[in-house]
Amino acid sequence: MSNMPNTTDIQSYMQQVGKQARAASRLLAAANTGDKNHALMTIYKTLSAAKADILAANKIDMDNGRNNNLDAALLDRLALTEDRFDGMLQGLKDVAALPDPIGEVTDMTYRPSGIQLGKMRVPLGVVGMIYESRPNVTLEAASLALKSGNAIILRGGSEAFESNQAIAKCILQGLKDAGLPEHGVQVLATTDRAAVGELITMTDYVDVIVPRGGKGLIERISRDARVPVIKHLDGNCHTYIDSDADLDIAVKVSVNAKTHRYGTCNTMETLLVDTAVANDMLPKIAEAIIEADDAMQLRVDSTAKSILAGNTKLDGHVSDATDDDWDTEYLAPILAIKVIDGLDAAIEHINTHGSHHTDVIITDNYTKSQRFIREVDSASVMINASSRFADGFEYGLGAEIGISTDKIHARGPVGLNGLTSQKWIVYGHGEVRG
Amino acid sequence: MSNMPNTTDIQSYMQQVGKQARAASRLLAAANTGDKNHALMTIYKTLSAAKADILAANKIDMDNGRNNNLDAALLDRLALTEDRFDGMLQGLKDVAALPDPIGEVTDMTYRPSGIQLGKMRVPLGVVGMIYESRPNVTLEAASLALKSGNAIILRGGSEAFESNQAIAKCILQGLKDAGLPEHGVQVLATTDRAAVGELITMTDYVDVIVPRGGKGLIERISRDARVPVIKHLDGNCHTYIDSDADLDIAVKVSVNAKTHRYGTCNTMETLLVDTAVANDMLPKIAEAIIEADDAMQLRVDSTAKSILAGNTKLDGHVSDATDDDWDTEYLAPILAIKVIDGLDAAIEHINTHGSHHTDVIITDNYTKSQRFIREVDSASVMINASSRFADGFEYGLGAEIGISTDKIHARGPVGLNGLTSQKWIVYGHGEVRG
Repeated sequence: MSNMPNTTDIQSYMQQVGKQARAASRLLAAANTGDKNHALMTIYKTLSAAKADILAANKIDMDNGRNNNLDAALLDRLALTEDRFDGMLQGLKDVAALPDPIGEVTDMTYRPSGIQLGKMRVPLGVVGMIYESRPNVTLEAASLALKSGNAIILRGGSEAFESNQAIAKCILQGLKDAGLPEHGVQVLATTDRAAVGELITMTDYVDVIVPRGGKGLIERISRDARVPVIKHLDGNCHTYIDSDADLDIAVKVSVNAKTHRYGTCNTMETLLVDTAVANDMLPKIAEAIIEADDAMQLRVDSTAKSILAGNTKLDGHVSDATDDDWDTEYLAPILAIKVIDGLDAAIEHINTHGSHHTDVIITDNYTKSQRFIREVDSASVMINASSRFADGFEYGLGAEIGISTDKIHARGPVGLNGLTSQKWIVYGHGEVRG
Repeated sequence: MSNMPNTTDIQSYMQQVGKQARAASRLLAAANTGDKNHALMTIYKTLSAAKADILAANKIDMDNGRNNNLDAALLDRLALTEDRFDGMLQGLKDVAALPDPIGEVTDMTYRPSGIQLGKMRVPLGVVGMIYESRPNVTLEAASLALKSGNAIILRGGSEAFESNQAIAKCILQGLKDAGLPEHGVQVLATTDRAAVGELITMTDYVDVIVPRGGKGLIERISRDARVPVIKHLDGNCHTYIDSDADLDIAVKVSVNAKTHRYGTCNTMETLLVDTAVANDMLPKIAEAIIEADDAMQLRVDSTAKSILAGNTKLDGHVSDATDDDWDTEYLAPILAIKVIDGLDAAIEHINTHGSHHTDVIITDNYTKSQRFIREVDSASVMINASSRFADGFEYGLGAEIGISTDKIHARGPVGLNGLTSQKWIVYGHGEVRG
């Protein structure tokens, strides 16, 4: 990390980083659980002791950010408050306490040839992480990679450069102290954009890229990457109120799925209500949502509009939906509402307009609940529960690498296992193939 | 399949094919096991009845191929003999007899929130298959896709156009007869190369690409694809004879791994022998290999050369290895041989020069066998068995989509599950997030 390269040397610098990561990954793959946990706890202690230095480094980033007129949201994400610092350390302890996924052997059976065949869980090798302002991602990503026996190359945002370097120093100390390879975690010493281009195309040295950030960043990386990407695009989540829905559940879940938090990818963006119960249920759901947050705006189709017309509790909250509304992830106190003609139309709407993230049916009908579960093509499909549950912690994964909107490798919330693969192992006794 | 497009219309033609595949995939995902098997068995009957037509179509391809001066190897792969036709039909029956992977629910447990969480195995959606001359791949790929509830778009080689269209007609009949969507299997009606470019970049309509063919084809596709690719590159497989190897097993496994078949990816290409036993074991192994096939050539390092010098049984079979030999997949009666200094050097050599396909240790030592299993970073790692076992049928997968040299999604031999993903399912009772 000490020798900051010239821009012209970016390619050879990145090749060097890649080679070092590959070499470190071999050692980390064979590291035992105790050593990995020891490194994590040493990082914990080192970080605790260096708290003042790290907050000071973050202050430099914040000052630079203000001087460079970074917008308020970005500055907020960049800020390492005492609370956030403590939360970051707690997360590190949580990762140390997780079971080690590496080395797990499953499905060991004898084949007719006489060989004994099974699968062993192993690290992917080298992870490339590309992220924006939040400096706590540096520690979170490093700890998840170490726990799962992977080397990691971290490329944070330029605005968080000082914070990330200060955190990296503590991580290095932990690796050294546990006798693990110091190139196991490398925080890039450059903020040159060309480094990203190298990182995502070094297929010899990098096994997977995990981007964290806005949709624009992730689309750009997915487009240009040669290394496989575990990506999360958008969450346009639906709740479908079936004709056999329980009204109380319909109201309670809708309110929670929409108003619990607005900025999360598992928040409901479109409410679908079956024609048969729209007159009865839609006004009650709409009123409860407005009651939960007076800032809510409802964008409704023509049928919903006529049902809600004249409802004084909704005054000023209702406007006409356009076609774009069905495809939009608002991440804001806005909800699209459509009255729809039965289960088939609901599934069709969700599979066409959704983002295959998380979708919910509210029903007490067995057949319809099972058809919804089977036919909705989303990473999480739910009956009678809030879409807000689609989350690594709620799913019991312990820590979350991210949420994948892909179908390949990992789907939905991704835990430590997302940074592993399974290789085949064969125990033989001199068998040959006939 | 009837409306062959103009070259200028390729893009809109492919968009149309993609849309049709996506629509068909929704229906196939929900199709029951009985209907899918009925379709496969109807295809079986229709193909049996159409045998003469299909062989006649293949004759046209063969005549065209000869007129176009296709090389002998390509013509051989293109030829649909009676034997191959029967083998193709038997493969179809085997796929029909496999268990249906779709709908399997695992890991269903209650979470502290009250929700019940599990995983359901579902189809990937739309598979794109790109392959070269062998017409039997058309049927094999279609049957694997149908069985796993996926729609498939098939792009065979132009040299097999008539054969593929004749087989496609029978597949269509089977789909119709079982009431399954006729766009479930689409064989492209064009051999324009631009169609491949569209197929591998239509991320809205295609979920995975499976290429079958030479390394050049697969590298090209991997480079240009936007859709994830399940790819198989090369198999540079090693057998390492440890100082604690059993001599009989060392000889037997080495002979089998090298000489059983030359053109397969799981054939041994480099033999590594521990210095401690090289004087004793290497001559016996080398002699046995030459005895198994007199055409064998041994490319040896300087230590092996001096050990084998003057051995009259090896006369004319031994030459000097160059650095390139350690990185070469010969697919021919050639074997590279290196004397190496212990387990660490062997693992280092394999991880550096191998292709992460299949590697073997011959040893009777517990600690070294376990270190080899853990530290060799290959899709299959074996103790005391021939690398030739790395194969979907030997591993009990029933049918093989391909062998993956990737670590993401599927590694090593890939069965029907390689064309599936697992989505999360949640059974709730009105739970909301606090």
